[in-house]
Amino acid sequence: MEELIKIKEQIEPLLTIFFDDKIARASKIDPSSKEMIELLKEFTLRGGKRIRAALVYHGYTLFQPPNNEILKPAMATELIHSFLLIHDDIIDQDNTRRNGPTIHASYEKLFNSKHYGTSFAILAGDILHAFANEILANSNFPDKNKNLAIKSLNTTVTKVIYGESLDVLSSINPNFSKKDLELTHYLKTASYTVEGPLHLGAILAGATEEQLKILSKYGIPLGKAFQLQDDILGLFGD
Amino acid sequence: MEELIKIKEQIEPLLTIFFDDKIARASKIDPSSKEMIELLKEFTLRGGKRIRAALVYHGYTLFQPPNNEILKPAMATELIHSFLLIHDDIIDQDNTRRNGPTIHASYEKLFNSKHYGTSFAILAGDILHAFANEILANSNFPDKNKNLAIKSLNTTVTKVIYGESLDVLSSINPNFSKKDLELTHYLKTASYTVEGPLHLGAILAGATEEQLKILSKYGIPLGKAFQLQDDILGLFGD
Repeated sequence: MEELIKIKEQIEPLLTIFFDDKIARASKIDPSSKEMIELLKEFTLRGGKRIRAALVYHGYTLFQPPNNEILKPAMATELIHSFLLIHDDIIDQDNTRRNGPTIHASYEKLFNSKHYGTSFAILAGDILHAFANEILANSNFPDKNKNLAIKSLNTTVTKVIYGESLDVLSSINPNFSKKDLELTHYLKTASYTVEGPLHLGAILAGATEEQLKILSKYGIPLGKAFQLQDDILGLFGD
Repeated sequence: MEELIKIKEQIEPLLTIFFDDKIARASKIDPSSKEMIELLKEFTLRGGKRIRAALVYHGYTLFQPPNNEILKPAMATELIHSFLLIHDDIIDQDNTRRNGPTIHASYEKLFNSKHYGTSFAILAGDILHAFANEILANSNFPDKNKNLAIKSLNTTVTKVIYGESLDVLSSINPNFSKKDLELTHYLKTASYTVEGPLHLGAILAGATEEQLKILSKYGIPLGKAFQLQDDILGLFGD
């Protein structure tokens, strides 16, 4: 927990700086663009344990001495997480998240229209997806490692989307099996929350394919355990 | 037109190969994942002039001899285009595009649910966005140029999303001005359809900042003219 808090305390000021810069740029375009980034800043900074950011950091420091530059890719995974939560909240029709309104709920209230709520939340998620790739491409690591990291990040996003699709179907598929559930857990959590972030940090530190496989052997069971624990908390409270 | 057709005839077989590979991989995950990629393949290949792909190609050949590898980033811009159209069609509530159903209309029919239609179309757009970045990161160009190209692509996506947001608001903003319209044209068309693709090709060929500025001077007015012509066609037919 201490390690997590240490990363959270470093990541959140960086997120603030990042969003403030984007707000300054967006305000030169149009008030509605500025408003979008302000909503995204508030939503992203409202909560979150920054587990993924911490795992990017520790994936890196397994192979290289600590270096503040790794906080940028770590921040990118938090933007990816916000992007996915925003789209997920539309899909799940959830109006609250982290003790506040979801992005589509905020927009729905602003325009007094459910359709506008959905529409702007789709766009807001999309822009964070683009920002995350931009941060990675802009970070100061060897170009070869950055390209491999961008490839890895987008492969992880692909997997989580397949997992999300499976998850949506689980509620209407009468044949949804234990195997399907385990696959959903792998795609939506083990890969996305643990293996992917560890790989991202390790790749930026120049880890080999063999070393990445070792991280998978550790990360996938950890991610599945994390999901099971989360489900138990969901059923029985804390 | 001949030049456009030449690129179209090279890009579409590559898109087929790309999607068939993704279908093979997705079918190992789950039937619903496979179905998503099959729908995306049909949607992406159903039509389109491939203007953006052609401009990536020509942006490259201004600075380097022709090279088939540039067709991959060109293909990535067509995937970005499909991604944006899919989300745009949800926002505009359009059920047809290119003489066939939009992605949300296909899913709506499949699950007999408007909400499932929207949900799966959001995910389907998101996965194409990830695929486009993956293709760029995987393409065979100097790593430094690839990182600059990924940065440029995601900056263009950011702009088109701001433009889309402005466009949605135009219909309810009583003060929407000629200046706002021109800004929308820049963000949604001039940057996205002409300047961005030209820059992407040129960056991969190693063009300098100064050379990119020259391309902007050519590309932005061309893009605005393209949009005006498109609006005239929209009003008065062909």
